[in-house]
Amino acid sequence: MTATPDLLRPFRDASPDVGPDGVFGWDRVARMPYKEEGAAPFKAIARQVLFAEPQLGCELRYFEMDAGGHSTLERHEHVHAVMILRGEGTCLLGDRVRPVRPFDLISIPSWTWHQFRASAGMPLGFLCMVNARRDKPQLPDAAALAALRAIPEVAAFLGESVVA
Amino acid sequence: MTATPDLLRPFRDASPDVGPDGVFGWDRVARMPYKEEGAAPFKAIARQVLFAEPQLGCELRYFEMDAGGHSTLERHEHVHAVMILRGEGTCLLGDRVRPVRPFDLISIPSWTWHQFRASAGMPLGFLCMVNARRDKPQLPDAAALAALRAIPEVAAFLGESVVA
Repeated sequence: MTATPDLLRPFRDASPDVGPDGVFGWDRVARMPYKEEGAAPFKAIARQVLFAEPQLGCELRYFEMDAGGHSTLERHEHVHAVMILRGEGTCLLGDRVRPVRPFDLISIPSWTWHQFRASAGMPLGFLCMVNARRDKPQLPDAAALAALRAIPEVAAFLGESVVA
Repeated sequence: MTATPDLLRPFRDASPDVGPDGVFGWDRVARMPYKEEGAAPFKAIARQVLFAEPQLGCELRYFEMDAGGHSTLERHEHVHAVMILRGEGTCLLGDRVRPVRPFDLISIPSWTWHQFRASAGMPLGFLCMVNARRDKPQLPDAAALAALRAIPEVAAFLGESVVA
């Protein structure tokens, strides 16, 4: 038995697994800002890196946004593998907007615009598996944004947010 | 929008997310045998590969064992990253036995004996993230098994099962 096995628990036994600060998570995993402030548009979202051992070749991250929060609208060459873990919200994927709920699986292909939004009254938490080596996300320019907003359901999803 | 985005839902909205056959899962993901019958000892466990796109470099699998079921007692060079998703059970990791419950995170290091067992009255389901390129698991020989059984809590965990 050479290595020290590790087992991390969420804050509490009872559901919802919410810590003393009102945030769901794992008490031995750092809760980090989603991205560097000012690097890209986002709102009320935190990031926990659950697994990132180099041998895995990939990482499993947990993102949680507060009610009304959202991730960055972006695309990139690398793919994402997402499982919704708690709460409810909506997901833009390509030119489609769909509600999401716990245990939904979402494959985000290369170069597909995507964004997650928590419902107005509920947080949204999801796992995201990603290759450890990946390219930097691209934000929409004015033309890309106009093309997205030309789709009525996407325009409704984006609302008033300034995303580029 | 070149690719077809994909979103899979578990069988039902309501918790627990159990299908008409009484098994939790995703209805567009094949439910496969855990391993080839006779290849290694295991009991009452099914496997679903949730994500395995080559670009990811890794796979996310969901394993669920019925009440009283168990995975194979094994070890290997590759590492596993596990999140318990539902039910309850017990996990052997190295020389330690610990109860596990939803949202527990378990890092299984290289060459560490490990096995999951569902409680007598509850299923146990967990996610397992793994590198797409990995070595074949090793089963304990008589000496390794004797060394494990010399630890009282491990002997109690293994019970009467024939594991080598």
